[in-house]
Amino acid sequence: MSSAAGPTRMRTEIAEQPAALQATIEALLPRRAEAAAVARDTRQILFIARGTSDNAAVYGSYLCQVHLGRLATLASPSIATTYRSRIDLSGVLAVALSQSGRTEEIAQTLVWAGDCGARTLAITNGPGSPLAEAAEVTFATHAGTEQAVPATKSFTTQLAALAVLALALGAPLDPGALQAVPGEIDAMLARPLELDPVAAELAGVPGVVVSGRGFAYAAALEIALKLKEACYLHAMGLSWADLLHGPIAVVDADTPAIIVAAGAGPALPGTVDLAQRVRGAGARAYAIGGGPDLAAACDLALPGPDLPEWLAPVGLVVPGQLLTEALARRLGIDPDRPRGLSKVTQTD
Amino acid sequence: MSSAAGPTRMRTEIAEQPAALQATIEALLPRRAEAAAVARDTRQILFIARGTSDNAAVYGSYLCQVHLGRLATLASPSIATTYRSRIDLSGVLAVALSQSGRTEEIAQTLVWAGDCGARTLAITNGPGSPLAEAAEVTFATHAGTEQAVPATKSFTTQLAALAVLALALGAPLDPGALQAVPGEIDAMLARPLELDPVAAELAGVPGVVVSGRGFAYAAALEIALKLKEACYLHAMGLSWADLLHGPIAVVDADTPAIIVAAGAGPALPGTVDLAQRVRGAGARAYAIGGGPDLAAACDLALPGPDLPEWLAPVGLVVPGQLLTEALARRLGIDPDRPRGLSKVTQTD
Repeated sequence: MSSAAGPTRMRTEIAEQPAALQATIEALLPRRAEAAAVARDTRQILFIARGTSDNAAVYGSYLCQVHLGRLATLASPSIATTYRSRIDLSGVLAVALSQSGRTEEIAQTLVWAGDCGARTLAITNGPGSPLAEAAEVTFATHAGTEQAVPATKSFTTQLAALAVLALALGAPLDPGALQAVPGEIDAMLARPLELDPVAAELAGVPGVVVSGRGFAYAAALEIALKLKEACYLHAMGLSWADLLHGPIAVVDADTPAIIVAAGAGPALPGTVDLAQRVRGAGARAYAIGGGPDLAAACDLALPGPDLPEWLAPVGLVVPGQLLTEALARRLGIDPDRPRGLSKVTQTD
Repeated sequence: MSSAAGPTRMRTEIAEQPAALQATIEALLPRRAEAAAVARDTRQILFIARGTSDNAAVYGSYLCQVHLGRLATLASPSIATTYRSRIDLSGVLAVALSQSGRTEEIAQTLVWAGDCGARTLAITNGPGSPLAEAAEVTFATHAGTEQAVPATKSFTTQLAALAVLALALGAPLDPGALQAVPGEIDAMLARPLELDPVAAELAGVPGVVVSGRGFAYAAALEIALKLKEACYLHAMGLSWADLLHGPIAVVDADTPAIIVAAGAGPALPGTVDLAQRVRGAGARAYAIGGGPDLAAACDLALPGPDLPEWLAPVGLVVPGQLLTEALARRLGIDPDRPRGLSKVTQTD
């Protein structure tokens, strides 16, 4: 529990991730057959989510496309809720993600998807929520109560649930690698991390770009969202390629870039090139993950997890969470209660 | 032609939009049967694009989902180019958009989509380009040569091409309304526009949020990209709902919001509420479009087009283009040649 002098709830919840991941993976791995059954006659996946859950959906889309060979894309909920359009979704597995399961827009869009012919699955930390009630199958995450407004353990457990979903649908990946994730997050949290030099530099800038490619893109988006929510920093989460198509112009001596990458994989070489280009523009570059190659290309570096690329986002977000929490405190913001936000966002 | 004392190329190209739109619509409307033929056995649309063209694709996704009842989502090109995954795309119409048609990543991803079973269509201003060569059907836009790095007429002609595509695929919409667009853009450009007060305020802020919902979301994304490219402003393009799920925290007395809406339609009431919420957070709000209701809810307002919601984005982006050009000059930036960018972006 936090007190005036103790750690913030956000910091405590970051530290609860190994246990939350362990509980989620143990609960969901035995339920793979249920997910396989609901997906049986589907050919593609449509994710329905907002905010942090949308960043988890981006991870899910890469996982399902790269390792299942199924088209997996993101829905626009307003098609359902604002325009009330009727779309043929036969052959589609609709996967809705919401921490609380109580965001009406998301539950309504999943109901709509079912009415349009989709099979439905929910990933939520609210097992009795309207979203859970609306889905044919619910994968409940075991994050426990999350009190800090910036989501941490509810995000990483969503990633774990998506990894189980991919395994359930036949991805040729090792469940043992997933089971090793909680231990690796625990090890990351135990290692000393040089947050202060990065936080000190970020405390003085008007904005920052957070970029990654492929699997790491979801982690980049989530780190950018944390920095916006809890530090009020103008943090732009952008894919490597989208950054080069225009927004690279904002990068300069006052606008650094945080560059996120798994320790290995086909996205790494281009990410290292990006870091060099950012520094060539006179900007500071901070690595999260990416191994020695990315660290060498950046001014400062925070080590990432020792995980295969398909699981790396679970660990890559952790230094970003810790950096956000440290930067918020440095800026005099209570990261547990940022202005303008509440724990359950109602959008319709 | 521009000179040291004359208008910028960007300003000239903004003014060329009515003629470019007219030429594009006249050239493409008679070719609807070709698009219908290539789409015949498809059930859904997958857009392939980056940067400005990606914002056009967002418009296309709303248009096809709301008015055709077909699922229409955006591809992640790195699935094709970085991960070289094989995905079943039978039943999919892949629509690639690129101004130049020479961004390798986009042409490669369209070729990949065809190899995966998709039917293919390109929308490009480069009729002899590799992208045009790769597609079964090419809808060439008639924007003419675009020299300023920030795309203007090439974007709005992409929107017109997408409108023709929706008509070709059977959308129950009036082609006459599309044919009236060039005249309305011409009328917009002839009306006096109070840009200076908005540009003066934006010249002093570290960042801005640009938000819209439904059809207007694509215009909001494109205006945010222009402000990033040509004014180096930390401009976040966000949907109405995604803004409320976290990033609303960045809005304050130093971070205003530009709020974009069609003059009518189901997205308008929520957009007016958003403007009130932004001002309630102590931030300045600037309307683009949205009629008298949105103008009354904002501090300053730039009128939008007199166009139905499905065509409104073509006109909504125009005040944003003019604002970007005026703000760049005020900031001492040549909008025709922003730092860090070239006209054809190579991403692979």
